[in-house]
Amino acid sequence: MKYIFGVDLGGTTVKMGLFNESGEVLEKWEIKTVKDNNGAKILPDIAESIKAKAAEKNLSNEDVIGVGIGAPGPIDSDGNIYGAPNLGWGTFNVSDNLSKLTGYKVKTGNDANVAALGEMWMGGGKGYKSIVMVTLGTGVGGGVIIDGKIVAGAKGAGGEIGHIFMDENETETCGCGKKGCLEQYGSATGVVRLANRRLAKDDKASVLRGKSVDCKAVWDAVKEGDEVAIEIANEFGKILGRGLGIIACVVNPEAFVIGGGVSKAGNIIIDYIIDNFKETTFRGCKETDFKLATLGNDAGIYGAAKMLLD
Amino acid sequence: MKYIFGVDLGGTTVKMGLFNESGEVLEKWEIKTVKDNNGAKILPDIAESIKAKAAEKNLSNEDVIGVGIGAPGPIDSDGNIYGAPNLGWGTFNVSDNLSKLTGYKVKTGNDANVAALGEMWMGGGKGYKSIVMVTLGTGVGGGVIIDGKIVAGAKGAGGEIGHIFMDENETETCGCGKKGCLEQYGSATGVVRLANRRLAKDDKASVLRGKSVDCKAVWDAVKEGDEVAIEIANEFGKILGRGLGIIACVVNPEAFVIGGGVSKAGNIIIDYIIDNFKETTFRGCKETDFKLATLGNDAGIYGAAKMLLD
Repeated sequence: MKYIFGVDLGGTTVKMGLFNESGEVLEKWEIKTVKDNNGAKILPDIAESIKAKAAEKNLSNEDVIGVGIGAPGPIDSDGNIYGAPNLGWGTFNVSDNLSKLTGYKVKTGNDANVAALGEMWMGGGKGYKSIVMVTLGTGVGGGVIIDGKIVAGAKGAGGEIGHIFMDENETETCGCGKKGCLEQYGSATGVVRLANRRLAKDDKASVLRGKSVDCKAVWDAVKEGDEVAIEIANEFGKILGRGLGIIACVVNPEAFVIGGGVSKAGNIIIDYIIDNFKETTFRGCKETDFKLATLGNDAGIYGAAKMLLD
Repeated sequence: MKYIFGVDLGGTTVKMGLFNESGEVLEKWEIKTVKDNNGAKILPDIAESIKAKAAEKNLSNEDVIGVGIGAPGPIDSDGNIYGAPNLGWGTFNVSDNLSKLTGYKVKTGNDANVAALGEMWMGGGKGYKSIVMVTLGTGVGGGVIIDGKIVAGAKGAGGEIGHIFMDENETETCGCGKKGCLEQYGSATGVVRLANRRLAKDDKASVLRGKSVDCKAVWDAVKEGDEVAIEIANEFGKILGRGLGIIACVVNPEAFVIGGGVSKAGNIIIDYIIDNFKETTFRGCKETDFKLATLGNDAGIYGAAKMLLD
């Protein structure tokens, strides 16, 4: 049996996992992300932690297939990162750098893309080879996997589906500076925005009134049958369904895998998406499956490890 | 030197080419598409023509790498076609069938996807590995090529970008039965529709008035500086730019290659698309290249041959 290290590099912590080739995670641990000096210590810290774990487990160089790492920034299929402001990083080759530090083969991908690969391998997308993962969190992220491989994009912007342009009448500005991005409707923040906008429109009774609304409260109210909350969910589903309908016309995946905080509401979010999806997508794409993600915060380390198994 | 047959199967004629591995076409010919009996003779006719050419050229079985074929219908990466009403075909495996008839290895793809691969190999996309081809013809077709390979899609609907949903206020119906598809604005028919709609709006002077407008007339008028024609081109560019901006957020190609009858107007169509593209796409995708297709009707046979060289 051979082994792989999977690394999910975030702005606060680095999650790490030791996997065997079958996709079992044998051990998980975390280290801090030290961002001083433009993140100069990040890769050396990761390398040190990997080497310590390999020594602890008595793994020879022949036992280790390599290291996969997901990082927050645009990363192409050669491992070049085109700047990561979150980490203080500029443009350089992550794979080459970490490979020199560890002595292992290294593959690098964008964190959202790598999480998508993890969900395909061992999560909600298990059994499929081609999926689009849609992460509905603080923002909307995505990852496109075709025939088991990440579509990284020419400049690492593959799967940046949070910023597809959905509504020319939008008046508020997205974090990216544009107006009308999918993220403005589909993220947790987006759901709250839709809720506040709807609540301000009139004074129809709703359990959502008289408190500070968060995303969970909206979906709880939908489950209780609150009419205003259902209107909000319909608006969310309309934009998400159309957006995913467009994506299906481009790559026609076997399945969409929906993850992120918003997806904690459960299958009800798929119910609100799927009718709008079927109504607006190409007929050949209507039967695309919809699944919920299952790996949660571990998707990144799984996908990172999987990159080494191609 | 080894050889490949490239076949572009259309509803009226079958275009065929004999290529060497370097991508030179040594000979081109055509046979009729005989659609009697639900297209039962189509593949046998193609096989016979290929075998006759191989005999004429004294090609042994070892000299021939195989046969590539593009056909009009949804086709997955295993060569299954999911019905082709144009040919009278149902669902079956084209590659297996033609391979039995010829004795050669066969690869099959959707015609638009195969044309995209051809343009990447020897046409407007030469030098790139990842492109999206956009064919603005009677309809709008497309093909997505990632790392030199066609993205066929789970049910052969990869690259069906003509039917991405662009406008919920559209009142007229697309050929697919939906309303608001990209094809309704970006195809030759779409340009004429936009022109007639604009001309009916008021009686502003234009060289386009008083005659039956076709797509070429619109672009000729744009080049002459006709203000009404320029408004039409702006509307065309707005929808196309936005549509391609969305596609870029999904797969982040190195380049878009624009072909089809509308593209005969030349680089001016790119001028009208590109500002809207940059305005609405994700920042990491703004520098995507735009090229015109160069192979015309030969793109299909080139791409068909290229499928055998992976």
